Amino acid sequence: MIYLDNAATTSPDEEALARATQFYCESYFNPSASYGGGFAVHTALEEARKKILSTLADPSKFELIFTSSGTEADNHAIFSGARRGNAVTTAGEHAAVERSFNELKARGVEPRYAPLHKDGSVNIEKLLSLVDEKTALVSAVHVSNETGAVNDIFTIAREVKRKNPRTLFHADGVQAFGKLQVKLAPEIDLYSVSAHKIGGIKGVGALFKRKSIALSPLIHGGGQESALRSGTENVLGILDFAYAAERRFAVLKENGARVAALKAQFCKNLNENFTILSPENGSPYVLTLSVEGARGEVLQRMLWDMGVCVGTGSACSSKNRHSRVLKACGYGEKVLDGVLRVSFSPESTMEECVKAAQIMNTVAGKFLHLTN
Amino acid sequence: MIYLDNAATTSPDEEALARATQFYCESYFNPSASYGGGFAVHTALEEARKKILSTLADPSKFELIFTSSGTEADNHAIFSGARRGNAVTTAGEHAAVERSFNELKARGVEPRYAPLHKDGSVNIEKLLSLVDEKTALVSAVHVSNETGAVNDIFTIAREVKRKNPRTLFHADGVQAFGKLQVKLAPEIDLYSVSAHKIGGIKGVGALFKRKSIALSPLIHGGGQESALRSGTENVLGILDFAYAAERRFAVLKENGARVAALKAQFCKNLNENFTILSPENGSPYVLTLSVEGARGEVLQRMLWDMGVCVGTGSACSSKNRHSRVLKACGYGEKVLDGVLRVSFSPESTMEECVKAAQIMNTVAGKFLHLTN
Repeated sequence: MIYLDNAATTSPDEEALARATQFYCESYFNPSASYGGGFAVHTALEEARKKILSTLADPSKFELIFTSSGTEADNHAIFSGARRGNAVTTAGEHAAVERSFNELKARGVEPRYAPLHKDGSVNIEKLLSLVDEKTALVSAVHVSNETGAVNDIFTIAREVKRKNPRTLFHADGVQAFGKLQVKLAPEIDLYSVSAHKIGGIKGVGALFKRKSIALSPLIHGGGQESALRSGTENVLGILDFAYAAERRFAVLKENGARVAALKAQFCKNLNENFTILSPENGSPYVLTLSVEGARGEVLQRMLWDMGVCVGTGSACSSKNRHSRVLKACGYGEKVLDGVLRVSFSPESTMEECVKAAQIMNTVAGKFLHLTN
Repeated sequence: MIYLDNAATTSPDEEALARATQFYCESYFNPSASYGGGFAVHTALEEARKKILSTLADPSKFELIFTSSGTEADNHAIFSGARRGNAVTTAGEHAAVERSFNELKARGVEPRYAPLHKDGSVNIEKLLSLVDEKTALVSAVHVSNETGAVNDIFTIAREVKRKNPRTLFHADGVQAFGKLQVKLAPEIDLYSVSAHKIGGIKGVGALFKRKSIALSPLIHGGGQESALRSGTENVLGILDFAYAAERRFAVLKENGARVAALKAQFCKNLNENFTILSPENGSPYVLTLSVEGARGEVLQRMLWDMGVCVGTGSACSSKNRHSRVLKACGYGEKVLDGVLRVSFSPESTMEECVKAAQIMNTVAGKFLHLTN
């Protein structure tokens, strides 16, 4: 199986998982317990926290809250950050942000949505025009999970603060983390990431939080995570996340160059039945395509049967026929029907990518031939 | 190390974990993905759900929502179930329920607390007197994590419904699950459990929910868990939970008898320096003691150094000097200072328990001798 749906989830870094499992089986104590074993687990968690925190942020200015997913991190940022007035986001968000913004209405906060450019990035000017003295929070995805477009969150955050210095700025960084070279600027208040997109296991995420801002908890209880996120810590998952992140970040730049070359070669091998929707300057890890006149989900299953695994867009919201985000990019029904998302991993090989492109050509040709 | 802090957390069932890890490493696909690999993971999750659901409930009347912890399950039940009027709980709750009830005030719901009997069980009559036509939710812990006292949640739920049929009934079942023989009656609407108290890993819990009631989500996003709990599922943790639960439930009755015998023998071997606070008819898995005139946390560390691991109460709220719950039982300062919680596992042996009791006698004697 050639696995090219790495934006949906990645295969686990088995070395990281084995290391975390070994620690966990020996040190299964509750990290809140006040005896030697508990302290040792607590210390391991704090080392994991420091490791992940320092990948993106200055530990003197930022802190890290472990969560159960990128989705929970997004929810926490949004519901804690937007408690009155209005909140601004983009039409290109992952369901975790989009659904949370929908829920804000019921809580008396007005959600506002900025439109997208054709490539999936937000129209910054229009986003800024939605920010006013009552804007509590702005949330913009860093790398679009649907097109790979990169939003310049640093410029957006700076301009938002210029218009309203009290507005909090949050970015969903799930598709950027461990892939793009990022350093969180002081204008970024909150930044969500997820473990299972970079070789960690499912069920772990984190929220980077600027120290100088106050958050209220989403989950109340025993006071874990500085009382911001209660519940016994997912020790195995958190350690695994730190080990996997450590390995990814050590070769982040090399990976980026390698994956960009894979993507370029992949594109070169596709035939004229494919239209590329992803921008040239987007994340090298994501390539969104369309076979006009075909049905993406049918192609996807035909490809699976031929040993190639690709996505049709966000795996998290496969209930609607068309991608909400790609619709917001302005594509028509024919393009939207035929969408496939190919997403690479540093473990993908050139040979696999060339072979996958050839199989995709065959499958698309077969579909178009059969239906014409 | 003789590990007798199993109410705080348990050592992982390594067979269950190995089995879940093997599946996960081979089938790492996103369960929301609509190709063969995604379906297979989805199916495995649904089998795990069915397995856990049927341990306690009739699958035609109840459903199960996977969460990241017992704490999250409690929060979900409380914040979704108590949206107006008042909500009633006991003075003997875990911090997950207690802190959530505190938060209700800020959300315009009046929290009401029923007092405890000396053994840690709730005074049912007084609890019922707090229920009125405006009571949205009643929440009572099934087995006290502080004393092992068992609340008769079935009687409570039935009487609550008699006073107000629209009141929802929730129980925190974290210390009962996999230990007591329980079948959820139709009067129980919501029931929280946790994986890591029965050999599963930390970071997984579940909420049993009666099908006929409606809940709103705590975490919004991609629509996982029937849109009640979004975020990519913790596949490894959930499968591990199901495997561990399967093994526990297969010998639940035998385990109960075995653990009761361990506890009885343990008590018999303790000397007169120990006062037993747990009720005779409580859970066999929990034994709360006090060495009057001693400090529990000092004894705990001395015991750790001598190879015996016990708790001092809820590991989740070790910040206050005295246990809030034991205080509510009516104990004075001298008893409260000297509290230790010994909690057994089906893997504990008779030899370990006898040895642990003897070491506890030595340590208590040493402490009292040194300080007198």
